[in-house]
Amino acid sequence: MYYSLLSSSICIPLAVSLQPKTTWTSTKFNNEKKVGSCTGVPRNFNMEKLQSGYLFPEIGMRESEHTQKYPHARLIRLGIGDTTEPIPDIITSAMAERVYALSTVKGYRGYGAEQGNMELRMAIAETFYRDLGVKGNEVFVSDGAQCDISRLQAYIDCGVIVGRAGNFQEKTGTYDNIVYMKCGPENNFFPDLSTTSRTDIIFFCSPNNPTGYAASRQQLQQLVDFAKANGSMIIYDSAYAAYVTDDSPRSIFEIPGAKEVAIEISSFSKFAGFTGVRLGWTVVPEELLYSNGFPVMKDYNRIVCTCFNGASSVAQAGGLACLSKEGYRALTTVVDYYMGNAEILFDAFSSLGLKAYGGKNAPYVWVHFPGMSSWDVFNEILEKTHIVTIPGRGFGPGGEGYVRVSGFGHRERILEASMRLKNLYK
Amino acid sequence: MYYSLLSSSICIPLAVSLQPKTTWTSTKFNNEKKVGSCTGVPRNFNMEKLQSGYLFPEIGMRESEHTQKYPHARLIRLGIGDTTEPIPDIITSAMAERVYALSTVKGYRGYGAEQGNMELRMAIAETFYRDLGVKGNEVFVSDGAQCDISRLQAYIDCGVIVGRAGNFQEKTGTYDNIVYMKCGPENNFFPDLSTTSRTDIIFFCSPNNPTGYAASRQQLQQLVDFAKANGSMIIYDSAYAAYVTDDSPRSIFEIPGAKEVAIEISSFSKFAGFTGVRLGWTVVPEELLYSNGFPVMKDYNRIVCTCFNGASSVAQAGGLACLSKEGYRALTTVVDYYMGNAEILFDAFSSLGLKAYGGKNAPYVWVHFPGMSSWDVFNEILEKTHIVTIPGRGFGPGGEGYVRVSGFGHRERILEASMRLKNLYK
Repeated sequence: MYYSLLSSSICIPLAVSLQPKTTWTSTKFNNEKKVGSCTGVPRNFNMEKLQSGYLFPEIGMRESEHTQKYPHARLIRLGIGDTTEPIPDIITSAMAERVYALSTVKGYRGYGAEQGNMELRMAIAETFYRDLGVKGNEVFVSDGAQCDISRLQAYIDCGVIVGRAGNFQEKTGTYDNIVYMKCGPENNFFPDLSTTSRTDIIFFCSPNNPTGYAASRQQLQQLVDFAKANGSMIIYDSAYAAYVTDDSPRSIFEIPGAKEVAIEISSFSKFAGFTGVRLGWTVVPEELLYSNGFPVMKDYNRIVCTCFNGASSVAQAGGLACLSKEGYRALTTVVDYYMGNAEILFDAFSSLGLKAYGGKNAPYVWVHFPGMSSWDVFNEILEKTHIVTIPGRGFGPGGEGYVRVSGFGHRERILEASMRLKNLYK
Repeated sequence: MYYSLLSSSICIPLAVSLQPKTTWTSTKFNNEKKVGSCTGVPRNFNMEKLQSGYLFPEIGMRESEHTQKYPHARLIRLGIGDTTEPIPDIITSAMAERVYALSTVKGYRGYGAEQGNMELRMAIAETFYRDLGVKGNEVFVSDGAQCDISRLQAYIDCGVIVGRAGNFQEKTGTYDNIVYMKCGPENNFFPDLSTTSRTDIIFFCSPNNPTGYAASRQQLQQLVDFAKANGSMIIYDSAYAAYVTDDSPRSIFEIPGAKEVAIEISSFSKFAGFTGVRLGWTVVPEELLYSNGFPVMKDYNRIVCTCFNGASSVAQAGGLACLSKEGYRALTTVVDYYMGNAEILFDAFSSLGLKAYGGKNAPYVWVHFPGMSSWDVFNEILEKTHIVTIPGRGFGPGGEGYVRVSGFGHRERILEASMRLKNLYK
């Protein structure tokens, strides 16, 4: 499932709708454990509309209940969206070198450019966007904050917090000002754009989390054409681009005309095991313009310089090493390892006669249990195999009936999980 | 000068005013070098209201003009707000150890807690807030993004971007919705609160950048009482707390009652030379409540978890080493070194018969040139001594007539600068 917002709203208020749809107000909060006197500052009322964020605590709770019930069971967590394998030496050596240099008069460096070291920006442009015309000054290095597994969910929450998402409808599980583009096998994981409403911003993640599906060149061309026809802006999340194994585009900028309608956000997190190191990047093309002709890049640059002080210099040194010939080759081996895991899990579910998706261009396998509640499936798998998955419903209403498992993990655990899964219905 | 916002607004939309004062709209932009077709997404009109950000580019321009004019002059930059001395070995060794562990199966770690490692949060509470009742769960580790020298300026800009600052008035150099609290020697660097309007949020930085003045216990008690009487929230910036040498409070929480009205933002940047490493923290006390009784901490926590993915694990390992007995002692030596520099510069300006402030509880010296334009002073000093300062006007209208110099720099350069300055009027 992809999301798009009726009115544009990004965590960083890059662009805003013509007329705010909500008014800010304060409600009475019944604080029984009130520990002090109140200030007169009203709470951001939109915080109360936040719905997500319960998913992982809920999974954690069920996990610990399970562990109490079966204290000797060896739990395997396939829900994990976090990298597990060591970072190649060549990359950590480069980081350590930078760290040690900080203790020398000659090597000490303080503040760097807010946009990132130009050497790294150039290397990103050269490595990931060769022949696509992306220049170093269009690459903004980030601390990868927007590169987590819950990115799309996070985007929605950011929209909620600033009051652009509108009200939440319990019945449908949706926000009023968000257009949900349901994607599944029935539409080849791509929305029917002929029936999709026009929005300012379209969030699109490919290879997708949680479905593991990578959009085809033809589908992305449709998306770009749609955005162009509607004057929309695409925020394209390519955090899993390194996992693409076929000829699906690894960047939205492989599509002609995309530079006039899209921003691309990507990350070293899943590509290089940098989830804890924190490093990512965003490409804002010079050609992308607001309705009045002003370049989005100029405002983006200004906002980065105002609200951000650059990614850690140590992480950036590591990033540069990732893009060296040797570093890149070493990382490819790690990516292949995770993809091997995903294949094992894909095959395990398939062997049960279930329809599994993904696992070919992304480390996620998305398994369909037709007609079942995804929380029920989660419970059944946990009870019978001591394996933790993620119920698809946790990713939004379109995920009902699915669970997600990931290829992140040590191989022997994945093989053990596969064995248990194959016996699920025995 | 301190600032306060009529309606509350933080970069992260923690709290918002009851009624937005501005409407979002789009204007025609005359883009002569238009490189592509426009999207239909309106620009955030508030971006046009941003005023600051020209300061450092302007200084850079004058610097390079000067260098062209005097190609053989040895320029000394005293404008610098960035640390220059090596980080003690014990700290970089701890970072390197964490980095190398990332290349091992056993030592690899991915995502950490968004709020920071609990060990570090506890160590921050224990080191900086012993006996002040701050608990580890009230400490939120950050990447220090809000800890730069332009923090107050940045705060204003964030307010501008989200449209809470109101319009900019060229004549006064101020924004309509911001109450400016002018502070100088005439009021002992503390605003007359009896004539200050009530605001939701009060930004207060002590030890102060640029004036170098640390508020006294009595002054801070007045501030807390003022906030309490008005139901305001104080955002207290204590990034330079490590530089306090007398008994001025190093934290707002030294003041009784402060936990009910204040958030404190601080940083490893200036304390540990981490400006490039990126690490800071924010204390949000449990006792701080919105007008409806809801704890600010809960929303802050939610926002951190939504919009941030934690500081780099490598930086956090370094932070923990900073707070070890040995690390802390080593850092004290570095802080003393910078303060020695500040004293040298303080004395140099004083020897000219000028009135200098600061330099005792902060690495900044704030020099008064009565009746002069601070840009003229900047030019004169540059022309005659090849020394770059910062014109006080760049920090806001209250800085006119002043220049700021900093104690960051290598000792031999500071001594050379001192010699040149002493000859300024000869």
